[in-house]
Parts: sequence; structure tokens; C-alpha cells
Amino acid sequence: MEQKNDNLKIILDEASNLSLNQIRRLLKNMPASEIAHALESSPPKQRNLLFSLLKTEEEGDVLFELGEEIQQDLVSNISNDELTKAVKELELDEIVDILQNLPRERMQNILSNMSMVDRQRIEMGLTFRDDTAGGLLNTDVISVRPNNTINEVINYLRDQGDLPENTDKIFVVNNDNEYLGQLLISVIITSDPSMIVREIMETEISPIDIDLSDKEVAVIFERNNLISSSVIDKEGKLIGRITIDDVVDVIREDADQNLLGMAGVAEDTFAPPGRAAKTRVFWLGLNLITAFIAASAISIFQDIIDKIVYLAVLMPIVASMGGVAATQTLTIVLRGLTLEQINTSNIGWLFKRELAVSILNGIVLSALVGLVTYLWFNDKIISFLISFALIINLISSVIAGILVPLILRKFKQDPAIGGSVVVTTVTDVIGFISFLGLATIFLI
Amino acid sequence: MEQKNDNLKIILDEASNLSLNQIRRLLKNMPASEIAHALESSPPKQRNLLFSLLKTEEEGDVLFELGEEIQQDLVSNISNDELTKAVKELELDEIVDILQNLPRERMQNILSNMSMVDRQRIEMGLTFRDDTAGGLLNTDVISVRPNNTINEVINYLRDQGDLPENTDKIFVVNNDNEYLGQLLISVIITSDPSMIVREIMETEISPIDIDLSDKEVAVIFERNNLISSSVIDKEGKLIGRITIDDVVDVIREDADQNLLGMAGVAEDTFAPPGRAAKTRVFWLGLNLITAFIAASAISIFQDIIDKIVYLAVLMPIVASMGGVAATQTLTIVLRGLTLEQINTSNIGWLFKRELAVSILNGIVLSALVGLVTYLWFNDKIISFLISFALIINLISSVIAGILVPLILRKFKQDPAIGGSVVVTTVTDVIGFISFLGLATIFLI
Repeated sequence: MEQKNDNLKIILDEASNLSLNQIRRLLKNMPASEIAHALESSPPKQRNLLFSLLKTEEEGDVLFELGEEIQQDLVSNISNDELTKAVKELELDEIVDILQNLPRERMQNILSNMSMVDRQRIEMGLTFRDDTAGGLLNTDVISVRPNNTINEVINYLRDQGDLPENTDKIFVVNNDNEYLGQLLISVIITSDPSMIVREIMETEISPIDIDLSDKEVAVIFERNNLISSSVIDKEGKLIGRITIDDVVDVIREDADQNLLGMAGVAEDTFAPPGRAAKTRVFWLGLNLITAFIAASAISIFQDIIDKIVYLAVLMPIVASMGGVAATQTLTIVLRGLTLEQINTSNIGWLFKRELAVSILNGIVLSALVGLVTYLWFNDKIISFLISFALIINLISSVIAGILVPLILRKFKQDPAIGGSVVVTTVTDVIGFISFLGLATIFLI
Repeated sequence: MEQKNDNLKIILDEASNLSLNQIRRLLKNMPASEIAHALESSPPKQRNLLFSLLKTEEEGDVLFELGEEIQQDLVSNISNDELTKAVKELELDEIVDILQNLPRERMQNILSNMSMVDRQRIEMGLTFRDDTAGGLLNTDVISVRPNNTINEVINYLRDQGDLPENTDKIFVVNNDNEYLGQLLISVIITSDPSMIVREIMETEISPIDIDLSDKEVAVIFERNNLISSSVIDKEGKLIGRITIDDVVDVIREDADQNLLGMAGVAEDTFAPPGRAAKTRVFWLGLNLITAFIAASAISIFQDIIDKIVYLAVLMPIVASMGGVAATQTLTIVLRGLTLEQINTSNIGWLFKRELAVSILNGIVLSALVGLVTYLWFNDKIISFLISFALIINLISSVIAGILVPLILRKFKQDPAIGGSVVVTTVTDVIGFISFLGLATIFLI
């Protein structure tokens, strides 16, 4: 490991001091995933240079390991011939992953240079949606018949030579290629060679349907600690398998999207400035609308601010505390939804719990806010009003923090993406209105 | 799968309508991970009931699958005898995971009921930190010698009977138990039985050091698509292995903590209200301090607000836009740090890119803000001032969004946790000061 990490550091830190041949030599000793990491950690110019130093045979593996955005950038810079050569040795799901985002014409051109068998396989792969089991499909399955002996199976495996990566099991099918069961390699090797496959195959674990969403595939892998799983089509026929390495990528990307989604950014770390600006301006624009909504709420109360100017000093406190509390509730709900923990049977309990939390914390915090305000402005009524407004806003933060994500989900929107802007708008508006409204009632 | 998901739904949705025996029967057909999921999706009372219906033999597996908080709650409710029985059949890393958080006295009591061998193994396991390779260690390794033939290895494996879960490879050690290489099961099964282990063992992949952090272990597994890896101590001796299922848990928990950390919540979804209030009040209290800091910034400018009251209406716009932009930059930096993409060689490029983004978006947004402000208040100077203040704040948001996480990391703080509060405080203060300050200069 040390050696490889050193390579990576040298490339990232000192690339500018090395000759191209020195960099080429370093790259030759790094696995595809490390090279992909180096590319993802480089600004565009340096990235293109590094990629151009790779041998064509290596490019395919590296392209597959890259995030979609960088992958497509690099693919758009190489010729059809080079791309065809680069992907030739990849697994089905890897080729599909790279080709699926190409313009129609370019894809046809590349497919037309492949053998009939490969073309048909890839065209089948391209019909599956990226975010389903089909998008993770490998077709490199090994299958045997239920009436084979273990000895026959072992001889068959020996004839194969190298087994595909992550082969922890082979599958058992009938003459129509319908899935019947599975057989762990570790069971094959420890069983009496005269046994019959049917006697020792496992039939308890269900195969995965080709249409299942990739997130559900990840849940099945995690819950059952799987290394690989068979995949069947609608007729129950074995069409391939999914392996844990691709599932780990799904889990990482899923987490990445949740984190980025909540801040309204959707770009790779070293995206060029124009693209980064474009992905973020929508979010900022949306926030601008909500900021003007909050400003309108304040403008209703211009008269009272005009009379008591320190209301303007204090009003952001109520709004901002509500925003933080709402984000906390929202985050708990988002996490519960992602992990599929929240459902109709427990949402009522959760709502009451959040309400209790907001009241408990409301009492502590409003006492504090009231005290500090009194020490600062020496005004009992204002101190009481800000405390009361804070409690109102913390309670409204619970309602927003729970209802907004549920409503967004109902309308098939990703609650991680829209949620935080909507809930903080609610708490801003209610924060300003409750504090300034109470002041209007009690101070005029 | 369908059958199991149904069980889960019935338990969660209709538990109250079922007799205890009916629930017990449903639980018997669910794997430990599904039961754990059902427990994590239940409020405390229902959770304790469900757990009490499990057989003692099942409790260990279920406890291990649970998050730390819920696991410790349930453990504290069962007797030492029951706990000893429950953990007896678990793997080393699982037992350690459950026992390590027990009060000293209780742990000693449980260890004293175990066999000498088990006790020593567990005591060794307890010396490793939870967040290192040692915390993920299993001792169920199979090792062979380099001069064994493949035939001898196969016979040895057959003698073992069942291989441990996730055994994709066995390890090769010398007489002093020093790690020499590894041998994939799939290679063993496809090789000529007369070959010698030394001839076909892999030596390229380095074993993992016992002290390596669990996050780095996850990176190594992902980069090299590993199912399992050997673990060595400081002397290079093989002491166990790590398997992908535990690494997947690390990845999930890591993602979970990033998401929760940014909102200052750290609790399981159905934590009781008192505990949830306690974990969140710190964050809210911190935000209260920063809110008062922002309020002090406003209070400097009370005179000008007193004269031009609609400054109070507009001032939250500048502050809130800066907060959103800073959170975007912060999120990109956090992601880059988590994925180890950011280092001294590219931070300069990233800073310039973020600056370019803030200027690009600043031009678009400040034009919009200026226009809307002009349409609303029909005041050219104020419109110009708010546009200018917005650009200042967007640029300061970049500086805060990049420097704050780097500084927090330098001081060994988790930038995901402190970051957002600090950066939004900076943009609040600069937002208020720049807008109100400019107004003071140009309007008085």
C-alpha cells in the first residue's frame, strides 16, 4: 500500500516537476482505481494531460472507475477507434456504464465496430435503466445443472481457468436456463466430490429481479452480507449477476448525493468554474426568492421597527434559531426515509417526540435568549416577547421539518434536495412574523 | 425477498393487532439484519417488546447488527447470564463490538464466565481502537504453508467442513506465523492439485496494518475491490482478517455521520425525547451565540436603520445569500476532504475556481437583487448598495467556505460538524456589516 500511495502523492504534488516519461512510469505501477483517484483529484488541464499518458488498454478500466461527469469529459476527447479499443476488455456493466451517455450516433459507430455477439450483449445492457439492478449487471456467470456431480463441477471450473473476479458462488439452472439455486465455491471445495449439485445447492436466497432499484439491491446486499447475487429476468431466467464492488459504489454515490443535494451543489470537486457556477446558481436563485419572501414578511412591520429600532437587531435571532432546529428535524426525517425506517406506523410517534424535543429545548433556549436580551436592552417586555416568539418558531420548525420532506416525497421530489430551502423559508417567515407581530400587539 | 419484506411490514404496521405468539413466529423467519432493522424502526417501548420476544441464541446476531446507541440500551436491560449466552456464538469483532461499551465491572463478570481461550482472544480484541483495522478484526483465518501442495490444501479445507463466511481467500504464513501471501479459493479450485502453494500464491497485495484507521481500510477495500484482507501486527505476523461486510458498515456509518454532523444531530431516529433534546441543544446553543454575534453587528448600525427603516427589511437577504453560497463551497471542500481529493497541490486551483464561481454568480444575482430592490423601493442608491454588498459577501463566503474546514481539520476537529455554523456566522456578520456599513457611508 505504502508504495502506491507514494506514487499518488508524487503525481499530485510534483507532477509539474516530473518529465512525462517519469509520470508515465509512475502511472504504469498504479491500479486503475488509483489512477482514477489521481484524475479526480486534478484540475481539468492536469487531468487531461495525465489521461493522455495512459496506454489505450488501461483507459477502459480507468474510465469505468471515474464519476460520470469526468468520465464523459474524457470520453468526448478521444477518437471512436481509441474508445472502441479501450472498452473492449471490460465487463458488460462497465462498457454499458461508459457508452450509455454517448450521443446516439457515436454509440452506433462504436457498436458497429464490435462483433455481433458483443453488440447484442451491449445492446441488451443498454436497455436497462442505470439506477436498476440491470445497470449493475455482469453477464460473466458460471452455471451448472442440478444433476451434475461436484467432481464434474470442479473439472468444469478447472477447464475455465481463471474465474471472473468476485466469484464466490456459481448458479444452478435447468435446461431452459431458469434459476434453481446457488452453490458457494467454498462449499464446492469442502464437499465430497461424489455429491450431486441438487443435494447441496442453496435455494433459500432469492435471485434479484432485473427491474429492482439499485438502492434496494444495496439494501439486500447489506442485509444478507452478499458478495454476489444472481439476477433473473421476468421469466425467471438467469441473465447475469451483481457483485459487491458495484454495490459499494452505489452506496458511496448515494451518500455523496445526499450530502451534495442538501447544499444544492451537483458537480465533481474540480469542475471548471463555468459549470460549477451553473449547477449552483439555480439553488442561489431559489434562495433569493425565499429571501425576498422573508423580507416581505419584515416589511409588514416597518412601522414598529421604525419606532423600536432594536427589534431589527434582535429579529434575525428568532429566525436563525428556527432554521437550525428545522434543519435538525429535517435531517433526522431524511435519514429515517433513506434507511426506510419511517412509515405510517411510527410517524405519529416521531412527530410527538420532535414536538417534545422542541418544547424541552425551547424552554432552555428561550430562557437564555430572554436573559441575554434583558441584560443587553434592559427591557422586560421585549425579553419576554423574544422568548415567546422563539418557542412559537421552534414548534413551527418541527411541523415544517417533518411535513416538508414527506410532502416532497409524496410528489416524487427528492426531499434531500428541496427540503432545506423550503423549511428555512418557513422558519424565517414565522420567526419574523411571530416576533414583530407580538411586538406590534404588545408595544403599540 | 418478498416474503421477508412482508414480515417486516406486518411487524411494523400491525404489531399492535398481533398476538405475541404471532409476532414471535414472524421474527423466527427473519434474518438478524431484518430484525435489527425492525428494532431500529420502532419507538423505544415497542422495540423493547420485540427484543424480549427473541430467543437468546438470536439476540447476539441482532445486537451486533444494531447501531451503538440502541445496542447499548438493549444490552443494559438483559442479565449477565443472558448476554454471555447471546454473544457466545459470535465472531471476535462482533463480541468486541458489543462488549466494549459495557461498564468495566460488567465486562469482567461476563469475561469470567468464558473459557480461557475465548477470554484471551476477546481481551486482545478489546485493546484495539474501535475506529481502526483492529476494531474490524476477525480471527477466523485459515492459513497454510508455502510448501504445501494444492492437494494438501484442498484436503485441509475439506477437513475444516464449513468455511467461515466471506472466505474468498486463505493466507500463507511461515513457521513464525509471518504473513507471506494469499491464495484465492477460486484459484485453488481451478489449479492443478500437484502445484505448490508458493508457486501460485499472490504476494502483490499488502496486508493491512492493525493500526490503520477504519476509513483508510474502507478506501483500500474500495480501490482494490477486496472481499477480505489479511491483517498483520507490528511484527508482520498474521493476526486475522477483515471482511467486506464490516467495511460496508463503515462506509454507511461514515456517510450517516457526515449528514447528521452537518446539522448537529447525533442520535438514532427513534431516540427518546430527553436524549434527542440533549444531543441537539449544544448545537442550538452554539447557534445562539453566533446569532447574538450577528445581532451585535447589526446593533452598530442602529442609527442608520432608525433613519432608513427598509434597510432592516433588506439586510437578511445579503446575509442569507452569503450563507447559502458559503455552505455550497463548504460542502464541496468537505466532500473533497472525505474522498482525499484535496491536497496542497490543488487547493490553490480550487480556491481560484470558487472565487471565479462566486464572481460569475455574484454578477447574475446582484443584478437580480438590485433590480427587484429598485422595483420595490424605487431607490437607485439602495439598489446599488445591496448589489455591491452581495458581491462582497459572496466573495467572503468563498474564503470562509474553504478556510474554515481546513483550519478545523488542522486542529483535529471534524470539519463536517463545526463547519456550517462557523461559516454562516462569518457570512451573516459580513453580510450585515457590508450592507449597513455601505449604507452608512453613502446615505448619511
